[in-house]
Amino acid sequence: MDGYREIVESTLDEVLPKAGERPAELSEAMRYAVGTGGKRIRPLICLASAVAVGGKAEDARYPAAAIELLHNYTLVHDDLPAMDNDTERRGKPTVWTKYGEANAILVGDALQALAFLVAAKSRRNAASVVAALGEKGVGVVAGQVEDIKRETVASGLAPLPKDLVDFVYEHKTADLFIAAAVMGGYAGGGSETDIAALRRFALNLGLAFQYEDDILDGDSPFGPEETEGRAKDATAAAIAALGELKGDTTALAEIAKRLLGRKS
Amino acid sequence: MDGYREIVESTLDEVLPKAGERPAELSEAMRYAVGTGGKRIRPLICLASAVAVGGKAEDARYPAAAIELLHNYTLVHDDLPAMDNDTERRGKPTVWTKYGEANAILVGDALQALAFLVAAKSRRNAASVVAALGEKGVGVVAGQVEDIKRETVASGLAPLPKDLVDFVYEHKTADLFIAAAVMGGYAGGGSETDIAALRRFALNLGLAFQYEDDILDGDSPFGPEETEGRAKDATAAAIAALGELKGDTTALAEIAKRLLGRKS
Repeated sequence: MDGYREIVESTLDEVLPKAGERPAELSEAMRYAVGTGGKRIRPLICLASAVAVGGKAEDARYPAAAIELLHNYTLVHDDLPAMDNDTERRGKPTVWTKYGEANAILVGDALQALAFLVAAKSRRNAASVVAALGEKGVGVVAGQVEDIKRETVASGLAPLPKDLVDFVYEHKTADLFIAAAVMGGYAGGGSETDIAALRRFALNLGLAFQYEDDILDGDSPFGPEETEGRAKDATAAAIAALGELKGDTTALAEIAKRLLGRKS
Repeated sequence: MDGYREIVESTLDEVLPKAGERPAELSEAMRYAVGTGGKRIRPLICLASAVAVGGKAEDARYPAAAIELLHNYTLVHDDLPAMDNDTERRGKPTVWTKYGEANAILVGDALQALAFLVAAKSRRNAASVVAALGEKGVGVVAGQVEDIKRETVASGLAPLPKDLVDFVYEHKTADLFIAAAVMGGYAGGGSETDIAALRRFALNLGLAFQYEDDILDGDSPFGPEETEGRAKDATAAAIAALGELKGDTTALAEIAKRLLGRKS
């Protein structure tokens, strides 16, 4: 994966508004929101997926930047007072704390529009790349809407319905992983069979990640035993999906391993 | 333009989540936000632009729905308490008043993602259609950021800098007109010369519309005389741009006439 991070950071730098570009506060706040040197899990999955279908990491540079822009807009909006009301993220003031609430709404909106503008720059299969981002861009919002409901139920006495939790995990957590993998697959010139395998890989990676998170937190809506079983099954399904890809899956496997600790 | 409205309404109905689709409140609120039977100026411009480059209105059905979805997300977010704090729109409660602030942020976000998913369905030049929407989707937010600044300046004693007003008019008002026309032009199979003419038409239509609005309100940052002159020039420039298109521009001219009263 040498050079992957450099591709992600340099592409983000290329596509974000230049410092001082009008309106200067919007340009500055968009760059602040995206930051530098985060984990960049989704764009790394995107680049590695292009390689896993026989393409080059470089083929997916714009889709990779696009998924990171979209992910970051969701964080900017999630932090808003009307949502999670968070004042800090990654040890720094959240966008709304630093630039005001109206600007934070607008920064998120601009990041989302920019994400699609950048996705459309994919040299291969641009329409499919954009469609994957659009589908999961709607999905992640649906997951967030149900998650707000989940929090309301969780604060009451009734047990959480499992299908509600399933919906939230699939959409809030896994959807952007799926978009990242599918976009990378299309940008790398993958077949529909490749895309289906990438989709299965990313869905199960996302779910496994979420179950492991619950285990680490010692707090799972499915109970510890079922959660362990689910984490194991999802990890196995992700690994199996990798086996169906015809290109070099070393990088995808490495990302999965890092994300899931030593369990994969 | 017979049948244009039917294309717009039926396509919006096709692409919006079905009633009851999970999460049901998101599906319902997205439909509520888009409504039915509004003026649909931007989608009509989009369909008419496809015809003006020699294509069919039907060619631009998805781009037309996309621009209306994007326009409506901007309204949902503009109405938020942190923005204009409006409780009514088109005589009905605004989305945040009816569904709560968090949901209104999310409804707007989902409408924007859906707009791009739908734009990518264009059978011709999908990547260019999406890029036009993405570029102006960023632009309209930039216009809004500067407009908030304009309101702050206007509430003080200093006169409004003309270039600030120009920026707001071009981006907040004209950008989505431009996106509509350019997307329609690409979907209709227009050449880059056609696209350039459509861009000039829509920019000047948007500006003329804004100047006429200022005249009707009796309140223009440029003063009555300059505003009259600007409205006249912009209208003439829009009409001149129409003359450069090779297809049937009757519908575009009719839309311009309606929008600008009897002045065009």
